[in-house]
Amino acid sequence: MKLADKNLIADDVRMRGFKHRSSTEDVLDWLDQQSIDLAELSIPIQHAANRVLAHNIVSEINIPNFARSMMDGYAIIAADAHGASAYNQLELQVIGKSMPGVGTDLVVTSGTAIKIMTGAPLPIGATAVLPAENIEAVGNSSIMVMESVAEGRNIGQIGEDITSGSVILNQGRKLRPQDIALLASIGKKEITVFKQLRISIVITGNEILPIGSKPKNFQITNSNGPMLESLALRDGAIIINSITIPDDPEAIEQAMLADYDILLITGGTSVGEEDLVPLLLSKLGKLVFHGVAMRPSRSTGMGTIGKKHVFLISGNPVACLCAYDFFAGRFIRHLSGKKRNWPYFSTHKTLKQKLSSMLGRTDYARIRLSSDDTIEPIAISGAGIISSTTIADGFVIVPANKEGYAAETEVEVFLYD
Amino acid sequence: MKLADKNLIADDVRMRGFKHRSSTEDVLDWLDQQSIDLAELSIPIQHAANRVLAHNIVSEINIPNFARSMMDGYAIIAADAHGASAYNQLELQVIGKSMPGVGTDLVVTSGTAIKIMTGAPLPIGATAVLPAENIEAVGNSSIMVMESVAEGRNIGQIGEDITSGSVILNQGRKLRPQDIALLASIGKKEITVFKQLRISIVITGNEILPIGSKPKNFQITNSNGPMLESLALRDGAIIINSITIPDDPEAIEQAMLADYDILLITGGTSVGEEDLVPLLLSKLGKLVFHGVAMRPSRSTGMGTIGKKHVFLISGNPVACLCAYDFFAGRFIRHLSGKKRNWPYFSTHKTLKQKLSSMLGRTDYARIRLSSDDTIEPIAISGAGIISSTTIADGFVIVPANKEGYAAETEVEVFLYD
Repeated sequence: MKLADKNLIADDVRMRGFKHRSSTEDVLDWLDQQSIDLAELSIPIQHAANRVLAHNIVSEINIPNFARSMMDGYAIIAADAHGASAYNQLELQVIGKSMPGVGTDLVVTSGTAIKIMTGAPLPIGATAVLPAENIEAVGNSSIMVMESVAEGRNIGQIGEDITSGSVILNQGRKLRPQDIALLASIGKKEITVFKQLRISIVITGNEILPIGSKPKNFQITNSNGPMLESLALRDGAIIINSITIPDDPEAIEQAMLADYDILLITGGTSVGEEDLVPLLLSKLGKLVFHGVAMRPSRSTGMGTIGKKHVFLISGNPVACLCAYDFFAGRFIRHLSGKKRNWPYFSTHKTLKQKLSSMLGRTDYARIRLSSDDTIEPIAISGAGIISSTTIADGFVIVPANKEGYAAETEVEVFLYD
Repeated sequence: MKLADKNLIADDVRMRGFKHRSSTEDVLDWLDQQSIDLAELSIPIQHAANRVLAHNIVSEINIPNFARSMMDGYAIIAADAHGASAYNQLELQVIGKSMPGVGTDLVVTSGTAIKIMTGAPLPIGATAVLPAENIEAVGNSSIMVMESVAEGRNIGQIGEDITSGSVILNQGRKLRPQDIALLASIGKKEITVFKQLRISIVITGNEILPIGSKPKNFQITNSNGPMLESLALRDGAIIINSITIPDDPEAIEQAMLADYDILLITGGTSVGEEDLVPLLLSKLGKLVFHGVAMRPSRSTGMGTIGKKHVFLISGNPVACLCAYDFFAGRFIRHLSGKKRNWPYFSTHKTLKQKLSSMLGRTDYARIRLSSDDTIEPIAISGAGIISSTTIADGFVIVPANKEGYAAETEVEVFLYD
């Protein structure tokens, strides 16, 4: 198999750059219409936060399933406290108490009260709970009521939180910590969620050394692999494969034909003579986009092989980070129940200096926060300079219809987490 | 041991509510001065995103450690292309090529060019890389140069990304995905990070059933436990213990004396006769705050037992969520290298209706987003109604110096993730 032209001279279009680059908008439009059917999985609720519910959850019970006190105080008949004040104290006889989990068989009748704790069941006959601070004790068996209380007050009614038979959480919900409490409260131990996306990460390049190797001679160490692992994990996926392979068509083909939901493949993605990846994706599946009008990451490509999605990502680390977050990460986040957009806090800041861009091209410009609360573009902005993203506090996206921004412009900034 | 007054009548101040409630500001001021010394741990870089660096990282090498091409093109002597244009094409002889990881022993001399791929080492003699799109091929061994190129152009210089001997990441840094790439690029396989905070979660209450139980009689199922687990995991901690115990002083004391960095203990935290937890913390350590001027979570307490920190959290689930995020979560996030503040996206929205609060009290008010992009306070707002936080889209914090907000006011909203 010989896909690459091994002539010394680039006599085909591949060496000449992209004939056409798609706009980021067109690529995102396509991407946002893509989907992957995920299988289901039952997991303990304690591990279910951030997972996506596979089915509606219907409660079979009321919460609370008994009327209970919401205060420490006295269960009484509200009418017995009518007109009570500090100057018109009304005496009630205390006949017992109701404790959480236990309750009482005693019945509140007119002129009597039952001491009650927060969460304890409301005794029969009581129509309100009088807060403890609104009484004065008289000996050991009576209280003086000093304030009236409305009927139903300080009582948690049956079904007030959750009504039996109602849908409490919908399919597709990304579960929050409080959702876990809700599920626990109705007695759920396990729930069915969608499985996580299975990501394969393949770093191509004859010059790539494995993680933990010191770069030597003209070789460099795999750095995109562990970065992409961290990014995909952050966005809710799992990594089922993370390897480096040479610029060898058979190795690339094997990686493409393996099992995964999403393949992130870096290196060899442009239009140079060693760039086998786009050609192989075209051969094995469909290369839907190749070349995007953006900087960095202009060599980004994406497509499908059957139901599998493949993202072609530049081997330049800044371009790799940018292309991941712009495209692959957006897709992974959405399918993991998260917001598609940049997973970074955004704010508005004023540019200290001009930020240059080019009409027709979307720019991912790294910036630093200045001590005077303005932002400064980072001068060293090559796609190969990963430290430009570690020195940076965040980035500004310059859309394709802008020739950058003048100094003093207020712009939206995304801050790296 | 008998700490609680078992009289029917509450004849002590504990039944009467808090004598004094601290302001949220005072509590946060204290909390933000607290710290915990965390031990160190060496872990593989692929697992190090979001962990906190225990030591400065100094690079022992330059990145790149050889001059390399940043483009697919031709390594030439820049002066050879001086004055070149489409109308003044200059011919160069192509004498070989430089591939990534391999390079060439050939030397570029005046009148010659070496074909070069992105990432390949720059041949000796070359002073610039001419992009492939700026040439025309002539047969198999010559090119016509159609554009000049500045000296040094499209070359990645030695040390341009990372300079040998420099600190590339500082102690205390919470590692980003791109930091992992940086560490990988200099050959790191493992790095030393701080250990995660060890959280013990203890749910007290005679009425609490274990997870997976259907609530029955007057008992309720543990829901705060799994919620607190999810919250603490989200904020970067690990859970070393998560149990339910009865309202029994010996069980509570044992839980307090166990090993942990932070204890989250819910239930029995107020000033009622069954509320043993504050008394036991006072006995075993120091109850620094008890009672906060806020709603919900007014019974929040916190303190220390030696180097361990203890947070007293209401058993009411909304109060539990609020108190966690306001105080314990803030502390955990900070010690886990994250921002102390609410870990939710914030935005500004207009209130559709009035949002009532009380002067002197901080309110955590759940809200929903309306279809017209305004926000509405959620009417059912009791601290026991967990569904108020699952129906909600987020919350508004009403500071103690505000009596709420009028309708049409624009306020900051935090959106649940």
